[in-house]
Amino acid sequence: MAKPPEPTGDFTETAVSSKLAYDGGLLKVKRDEVRLPDGAIAWREYVLHPGAALILPVFDDGSVLLERQYRYPKQRHFIEIPAGKLEAGEEPLATARRELIEECGYEASEWMKIAALDPTIGYSNEVIHLYAARGLHHVGAQLDEGEHLEVFEARLSDALEWVRDGTISDSKTTFALLWWDKWGRFP
Amino acid sequence: MAKPPEPTGDFTETAVSSKLAYDGGLLKVKRDEVRLPDGAIAWREYVLHPGAALILPVFDDGSVLLERQYRYPKQRHFIEIPAGKLEAGEEPLATARRELIEECGYEASEWMKIAALDPTIGYSNEVIHLYAARGLHHVGAQLDEGEHLEVFEARLSDALEWVRDGTISDSKTTFALLWWDKWGRFP
Repeated sequence: MAKPPEPTGDFTETAVSSKLAYDGGLLKVKRDEVRLPDGAIAWREYVLHPGAALILPVFDDGSVLLERQYRYPKQRHFIEIPAGKLEAGEEPLATARRELIEECGYEASEWMKIAALDPTIGYSNEVIHLYAARGLHHVGAQLDEGEHLEVFEARLSDALEWVRDGTISDSKTTFALLWWDKWGRFP
Repeated sequence: MAKPPEPTGDFTETAVSSKLAYDGGLLKVKRDEVRLPDGAIAWREYVLHPGAALILPVFDDGSVLLERQYRYPKQRHFIEIPAGKLEAGEEPLATARRELIEECGYEASEWMKIAALDPTIGYSNEVIHLYAARGLHHVGAQLDEGEHLEVFEARLSDALEWVRDGTISDSKTTFALLWWDKWGRFP
């Protein structure tokens, strides 16, 4: 396998000053003054995010567990796989285990780290840690207050067709399904 | 192909009030009070985004054009494909044509809409329109002030290996490469 070509430029931007420009209940926005590689001064605004864990739950027959929920910023329902934000001091795998129970009501006997995905590098520092989970057994969901969703099983081939036709357009979910389809197998 | 199961629940959240909570130079954050499906009141915070266009430039031999740039929110360089925000009143295809010239210095004779991707449904209304472009010819880049990046060609198979090993982790880029690998072909 070839490696990417050696970089010819260093485009690092260095902080000159940094402030918390918006401190909301969910979103924290930083606004930093930065020095560009050409010496000019500019500013960068971005969301501070604690990171998230993402779970692709795979049943013994190869089908996957999906959920359907309403996403207010987009004003419509989405088909997704389970995910959740890291709590303070929480390891990503612990978040993944917790969210799979809370949102879907499943425990898994086997977990495999697949990848880390950066969903929004232009304006957020979020990273999403993706795990595949198998050996699923139902223990009952424990939705957070104000959390409303439903879960269902689907064949991987169907879920992929829903990516192709746009029924599934959530970036974390498309990544997990396409990655698993191309490279996924449990040891 | 199967369809997703009929929804059993309607989880729509309805705006009770809405305000622009942060009006930054780049980021605009809305904070809305909403009525949940169970009648409870909650609030939702999210970034208002004009939408973006994303281009997978494909050469005649099947290799693709990538770029490398620094992303300040993540404090490191990323390998990506070209993209840019829609300007006011701009059609996504016009944005795609403009960004391919500005960032990479290429024009394309043929464009194909592939998909729309929602990168961050939890806290942004951004949608990214993905196009494949071929019939590439070099006309010279016209980088915006303060924009620093370099471009290079890669075999699709190499770029996919970089997705697999984490060298490429930007969600829009992983989506485009995996989608094109699985389904892409020009008419």
